Amino acid sequence: MIRIYDFDALSPEQILNRDLRAEKNVEDVVDAIIADVRARGDAALKEYALKFDGAEIDTLQVTQEEIDAAFAATDPDFLETLRMAAANIEAFHRQQVHKNFVMNEQDGVILGQKYTPIEKAGVYVPGGTAAYPSTVLMDVIPAKVAGVKEIVMTTPAGKDGKVSPVILAAAATAGVTKIFKTGGAQAVAALAYGTESVPAVDKIVGPGNIYVATAKRKVYGKVGIDMIAGPSEILVLADGKCNPAWVAADLLSQAEHDKLASPVLVTDSAELAEAVQAELEVQIPQLPRAAIARASVDDNGKIIVCDDLRKAIEACNIIAPEHLEVCVDDPFAVLNEIKNAGSIFLGRNVPEALGDYFAGPNHTLPTSGTARFSSPLGVDDFVKKSSFIYYTREALGKVQERIADFAEREGLHAHARSVTIRYEE
Amino acid sequence: MIRIYDFDALSPEQILNRDLRAEKNVEDVVDAIIADVRARGDAALKEYALKFDGAEIDTLQVTQEEIDAAFAATDPDFLETLRMAAANIEAFHRQQVHKNFVMNEQDGVILGQKYTPIEKAGVYVPGGTAAYPSTVLMDVIPAKVAGVKEIVMTTPAGKDGKVSPVILAAAATAGVTKIFKTGGAQAVAALAYGTESVPAVDKIVGPGNIYVATAKRKVYGKVGIDMIAGPSEILVLADGKCNPAWVAADLLSQAEHDKLASPVLVTDSAELAEAVQAELEVQIPQLPRAAIARASVDDNGKIIVCDDLRKAIEACNIIAPEHLEVCVDDPFAVLNEIKNAGSIFLGRNVPEALGDYFAGPNHTLPTSGTARFSSPLGVDDFVKKSSFIYYTREALGKVQERIADFAEREGLHAHARSVTIRYEE
Repeated sequence: MIRIYDFDALSPEQILNRDLRAEKNVEDVVDAIIADVRARGDAALKEYALKFDGAEIDTLQVTQEEIDAAFAATDPDFLETLRMAAANIEAFHRQQVHKNFVMNEQDGVILGQKYTPIEKAGVYVPGGTAAYPSTVLMDVIPAKVAGVKEIVMTTPAGKDGKVSPVILAAAATAGVTKIFKTGGAQAVAALAYGTESVPAVDKIVGPGNIYVATAKRKVYGKVGIDMIAGPSEILVLADGKCNPAWVAADLLSQAEHDKLASPVLVTDSAELAEAVQAELEVQIPQLPRAAIARASVDDNGKIIVCDDLRKAIEACNIIAPEHLEVCVDDPFAVLNEIKNAGSIFLGRNVPEALGDYFAGPNHTLPTSGTARFSSPLGVDDFVKKSSFIYYTREALGKVQERIADFAEREGLHAHARSVTIRYEE
Repeated sequence: MIRIYDFDALSPEQILNRDLRAEKNVEDVVDAIIADVRARGDAALKEYALKFDGAEIDTLQVTQEEIDAAFAATDPDFLETLRMAAANIEAFHRQQVHKNFVMNEQDGVILGQKYTPIEKAGVYVPGGTAAYPSTVLMDVIPAKVAGVKEIVMTTPAGKDGKVSPVILAAAATAGVTKIFKTGGAQAVAALAYGTESVPAVDKIVGPGNIYVATAKRKVYGKVGIDMIAGPSEILVLADGKCNPAWVAADLLSQAEHDKLASPVLVTDSAELAEAVQAELEVQIPQLPRAAIARASVDDNGKIIVCDDLRKAIEACNIIAPEHLEVCVDDPFAVLNEIKNAGSIFLGRNVPEALGDYFAGPNHTLPTSGTARFSSPLGVDDFVKKSSFIYYTREALGKVQERIADFAEREGLHAHARSVTIRYEE
């Protein structure tokens, strides 16, 4: 059963406390796989596909025929859902596109900043027991909107050597350029260093198991990576007017992900706390993934009862949750007070699942309290900035002595000289 | 002597090749220091100050009296230079501030994204042989512009227990909230976990030696960090009309930083290549830091001669330099073709030192080719985004079946249920 705590009895550390995934010692395995892929390229990828995925792969790249077949094999109504979701995701992410700027406020001085999309992006899509087309949409569409020319997706094939049709349909809908049948650390190595088939990319995004995450850490520096996500989290901030069955269902939508997922209710109503506690006991046994949800709720779940809404908001800002539902009368008033959260769901009619699949904002979000300093995946992850400076000779001449003096004070004579040499003789 | 290469004879790997800093095995030392600071707080910081900096520290926090004394001890003309540079840096970074957005394009649907400054930022400022007030300005002002309320600076004191007056003057000019006399891995540990005196921050920025860099890597996740910078680099793209003495001086302004610094000239003029090669031999012996510059130029410097400007630009984009000077007749035409560079200096009258100290764009820039996927330090590093979603009950009702179907197809029944439960009975 989920435990109920009194806010005032908890320290910030206890409020924040999360059970983090223990990393197994996979470093050596991953190092060996990366070295092997660098040395042997496609041959290594095919060997690992057979070894880890049980798949005999002849051609690593998914063909247009396979993509056409995937569309034909997918329920047309679901294709329509995919297209609607993709359109919503694209519309939202288009708002994230920034403009270059140029300043010309001083005589003879032009300063500016320009955005350039990264040239090639790699998107890792996990395979295994379940296929997650929503992840394909969420990781690919921001790259597309950013203007990335080549979006390379990798995903392990099943034992039949094929990729799930819904994954291919989602990839084609989102605008992936090339798809390769490779997974795990070997896929990350291929994307970072390139093989005969797989192009080397500049940045790799996407979720994966501990081998994928470790490989991403290892290749970071050679390429960029997105965040390394921890277990999923939901925080429901709910007042006494909420329907406890809805709140319990929302908590369980995260609890079913993973035994380490963290479902938290923060409320100013002791009555609601008890009602949700009871309702969880009713709903958990009804779930197909009841064992996972049970472990998540009992071991990593929490109900925190606060004296008032102000303290409840304080708890939210300490926890800095990945997903935050604000189930109160005037959620927009609370929005203003929320400093730390990945994605915020406003009002009693907005379950997190709406954002996971459909509404438009990204579902790849900062976990483990990192919303204190980091952000959802978005267009910014697929562009970089360059600043630029232009001074006329006259403009530089006016300040050259100050710059030279500044450099000399830092003990950097050659810096000073590079300015003054232009005014010698 | 610097070596001259023919562009067409080099592979992209050879063009890109850089001598990267080998990391000594400092992990254990840093682990022990972090654990000690977490256990003993201020007492540990004071002990390390005595051990590593030779400084007996009574009170870790710099007092207002010390700051006042620093201003009194600093040349008023240099204070004016600091203020002018700070004003330029602030004006540029103000242009980087993004606006929140709200979308209301579908009936009953409100989506948006809001920026929130991180609450507390830590800025590490190295001590040791030289004081770099320019780094204080560059690291602090973007945080200030971003709206960070508490900006905590740490820097080691000298043997006299004092911080360099120019560092204190720069810190006060830039808007630092609190300054502490602690350096090295122990300062990073203090900023990440807090001590009796030093507040725990949400993100730590600033350059440092291998101990500082390793400590930043270790605390990443608990707090955010900026980039871990490699050796400095300059790429000068110059045509045959350039003054070889100016080009040589610009290359040396980076070469004097560090034996591992990489000064590169890319030109379409074999004549300029040879003239710059000769000029470097004239200028190097004149420098106070000649030995460092000599090692940098000979071991990590390079002149690449290309058939034409188009190929020269290609070389720039492969190298993705930290600093790029574009010394040609029409530098703005070239700007458009530059995809990968941290900061770009346009025209023959714009030495990199102008940007290091004064012009306004940040001088903390991506190194080692990471400009392919990362950006200069800026306001974005001190804010984070939260997305938000509001749907009316009617708006959700119209799409609830599609969302539930999507969730069921991913095998996530509780996700589906969290939507459909709102329409039961």
